[in-house]
Amino acid sequence: LIVGVILRYGTPSTSGHDKPFSCSQEDRPFTTLLVNVSGKFFEYTLKGEISPGKIHNVEQNDMLRKVTFDPEVFFNILLPPIIFHAGYSLKKRHFFRNLGSILAYAFLGTAVSCFIIGNLMYGVVKLMKLVGQLSGKFYYTDCLLFGAIISATDPVTVLAIFNELHADVDLYALLFGESVLNDAVAIVLSSSIVAYQPTGENTHAFDAAAFFKSVGVFLGIFSGSFMMGAVTGVVTALVTKFTKLHCFPLLETALFFLMSWSTFLLAEACGFTGVVAVLFCGITQAHYTYNNLSVESRSRTKQLFEVLHFLAENFIFSYMGLALFTFQKHIFSPVFIIGAFIAIFFGRAAHIYPLSFLLNLGRRHKISWNFQHMMMFSGLRGAMAFALAIRDTATYSHQMMFSTTLLIVFFTVWIVGGGTTPMLSWLNIRVGVDPDQDPPPTNDSFQVLQGDGPDSERRNRTKQESAWLFRLWYSFDHNYLKPILTHSGPPLTTTLPSWCGLVARCLTSPQVYD
Amino acid sequence: LIVGVILRYGTPSTSGHDKPFSCSQEDRPFTTLLVNVSGKFFEYTLKGEISPGKIHNVEQNDMLRKVTFDPEVFFNILLPPIIFHAGYSLKKRHFFRNLGSILAYAFLGTAVSCFIIGNLMYGVVKLMKLVGQLSGKFYYTDCLLFGAIISATDPVTVLAIFNELHADVDLYALLFGESVLNDAVAIVLSSSIVAYQPTGENTHAFDAAAFFKSVGVFLGIFSGSFMMGAVTGVVTALVTKFTKLHCFPLLETALFFLMSWSTFLLAEACGFTGVVAVLFCGITQAHYTYNNLSVESRSRTKQLFEVLHFLAENFIFSYMGLALFTFQKHIFSPVFIIGAFIAIFFGRAAHIYPLSFLLNLGRRHKISWNFQHMMMFSGLRGAMAFALAIRDTATYSHQMMFSTTLLIVFFTVWIVGGGTTPMLSWLNIRVGVDPDQDPPPTNDSFQVLQGDGPDSERRNRTKQESAWLFRLWYSFDHNYLKPILTHSGPPLTTTLPSWCGLVARCLTSPQVYD
Repeated sequence: LIVGVILRYGTPSTSGHDKPFSCSQEDRPFTTLLVNVSGKFFEYTLKGEISPGKIHNVEQNDMLRKVTFDPEVFFNILLPPIIFHAGYSLKKRHFFRNLGSILAYAFLGTAVSCFIIGNLMYGVVKLMKLVGQLSGKFYYTDCLLFGAIISATDPVTVLAIFNELHADVDLYALLFGESVLNDAVAIVLSSSIVAYQPTGENTHAFDAAAFFKSVGVFLGIFSGSFMMGAVTGVVTALVTKFTKLHCFPLLETALFFLMSWSTFLLAEACGFTGVVAVLFCGITQAHYTYNNLSVESRSRTKQLFEVLHFLAENFIFSYMGLALFTFQKHIFSPVFIIGAFIAIFFGRAAHIYPLSFLLNLGRRHKISWNFQHMMMFSGLRGAMAFALAIRDTATYSHQMMFSTTLLIVFFTVWIVGGGTTPMLSWLNIRVGVDPDQDPPPTNDSFQVLQGDGPDSERRNRTKQESAWLFRLWYSFDHNYLKPILTHSGPPLTTTLPSWCGLVARCLTSPQVYD
Repeated sequence: LIVGVILRYGTPSTSGHDKPFSCSQEDRPFTTLLVNVSGKFFEYTLKGEISPGKIHNVEQNDMLRKVTFDPEVFFNILLPPIIFHAGYSLKKRHFFRNLGSILAYAFLGTAVSCFIIGNLMYGVVKLMKLVGQLSGKFYYTDCLLFGAIISATDPVTVLAIFNELHADVDLYALLFGESVLNDAVAIVLSSSIVAYQPTGENTHAFDAAAFFKSVGVFLGIFSGSFMMGAVTGVVTALVTKFTKLHCFPLLETALFFLMSWSTFLLAEACGFTGVVAVLFCGITQAHYTYNNLSVESRSRTKQLFEVLHFLAENFIFSYMGLALFTFQKHIFSPVFIIGAFIAIFFGRAAHIYPLSFLLNLGRRHKISWNFQHMMMFSGLRGAMAFALAIRDTATYSHQMMFSTTLLIVFFTVWIVGGGTTPMLSWLNIRVGVDPDQDPPPTNDSFQVLQGDGPDSERRNRTKQESAWLFRLWYSFDHNYLKPILTHSGPPLTTTLPSWCGLVARCLTSPQVYD
């Protein structure tokens, strides 16, 4: 923020010799342009379209433009390590135990939130049009897009405090799982909304056919990305299992890194969403490949992605501060901003409470009221909302949405994030929990039975306590996938020779969800 | 290589709708261009000048252009981690013990090699002109630039084999130190040659004043970069010593990474050479900051830079293979290539043997003939030569130099690198040496006395056996710099409270060069 203020107001405006040059072209724009300047030829590449009203902006302030990144940098460089790390460091047992609820919150909840925010914002926009505060076009799909952008919660501050205070593990799993998956949902949601945005000037109305087409696109992209991530993870698991790679930890780490990264590129190349693919790749890698890695590579990969994630996340937050002042197309509309804050409040409420009620009908271990309040409170917006909003700031409506998103991110991270510890104690959520221990029997709200006895006993209890979805998956995974893809489990291990002394310890201990 | 062949010959040439568009401009080229295409405005950015004869190349094959990187990527993204890692993982004791010889080889040797190769190549170019094989301009400074480019040795294969076979540590230190420093020397040398290249069309002749100006620029840039790197290293050491940063290992690692990287950016911003600054920053970080880091950060930073270095180096070598077929402006001139191979042979010989003779006059432990032969043999060219050559491929002469450099790199890495193990045994260079042990007394060529007894004894012997330059530096460093910048050494440690229990172990063991 401070650097942004200095750059904005502390430096002289330099609009010297970089004046744009106009020349006319008949047809569609070329991607490459050759310009003849007094006999010499210079090559130019297409950067993008500029609306006629904004032409003076190009020459406005060169300094500020230099600190502005290509938004695709966020999607292609900064988000993948963050998302991959989220998947790779997932606390699997608690995640899978609450899988059904997490999926409900992430998919259904985000869609509900997106829809409600979109509709409320459409009302706000209509109001602004009546009052005459709207000086550009704002379609219904723009409102829905804003709903998708702002529905990606990122309770990074909340989860950091949870981690530090060792707050309830199931609440942690619910919040973390939801935020990780709804990032993915929001990306796919927003890109399918953009794909079916009306292109003509007069199609204000929302088209039902287009809506269902969007839903189809959404499901297609999501499942495709999921498959892509899972497949690369499985391939890496097979490669690390059936080769001598574990004898060369550096090579192993590098290959692991490159395979995970190429998931992203492959998915993008196939028209899927790289970030979603990378998330599921991370989960698969942690679940299978991790067991095949050498001891050195295990710590190396964990540390590498931890550092990358840390750097990327801090970079995004730093850039947000900078962007608040250096971004040149801010449109701050008080009505829109106040409307957006009210809309996200109602969107979050309509997301958490009805869904929790429905889930509690089916859950043996109910989600208590104070957990629901905490989830309502933890609807922070962060890096993903910012990245989605900055992706397209070409039109009036997108610029207004970007400025509003930035303010919402700042407000929720600073004010709401800062209030996490008081909120935890106010809601009587227990802290100081060892994630591998039984919850104390005094907790009556969310009690789970979880043994820490020997393996088989624990597995039985895990089965007993878990959701049916998890149980189905667990038995399939334990009986078929794990023995094929990793060195653990009985069926395959006995038939395979251990190529290399280094990896001997990998073979000894069968992995359970932890 | 294989992917390059496939891209080149296996894919149809797609020169469809990306045809360049020409329009005329009066003055100098603008960096931003606005083009009016049927009412819409599109923004273009300047990519570079194209010589009129090469205009058809722009539309030739879009696929091949897509796999071609901006050469600055090598300098700004890929080289810094490689060079930093070289500095950070330096075996300090052996490096500093041979400091005088290493400096002589790196500075004097590289300059001699550059000058000799440059002059020989000028002869080759003259010959080509006589025979009529030269179809473009080739100045004397181009030849000198080629000398600078190709003088950067990179015995990565040789050193990998040395490391694996535990070959003689002093020979390793000489080769490694030389290659690390001569990378830096070659960069500065080539940029000072480029800076004083005659700009007019008719200044073929070499200007003595320009030469001395180049030398001045060289010394200025080198010492400036050195200072910049050392200063950031010292600042990081002070920050890590006098703050509680070691209680947050992830933050510490991230800051360490960012400080090291910013050295590069800072140096580039000040007009110095980032890569050189990063090298000395790495040495300083390893020497001082490393001692202040938490145990976790020590392994984390080492592993992080190891992985980054590994990835970057492999990327460069992969890209080299690709570039051999997909680079579109190759000019392979048999005469020039044969001349270059002969020139680098003589350049390396004139670099090693006379200098070794002079150094042996002063050295107590002579550099034996088989060591000299091994050093002569280890004159491999690698990533740095490639990066320097690809930096500017705009003119005829630079394109020919690039193609030749690529072939030299391939030949030396594959053929010469592959012959390292036979060469080692043929030259009777002992292998299986423990770097921390005394050399066996049977070795009469390069015997050094080096105790592994208690600290003070070892320090005395180290002093006794070392070069005067090292002794001077050692006492200054041990008495003043180490106590100020790190937690080791008596003078300051006793007066400083230990802020944090985590770092207690840092305080206990005074560090020696190892």
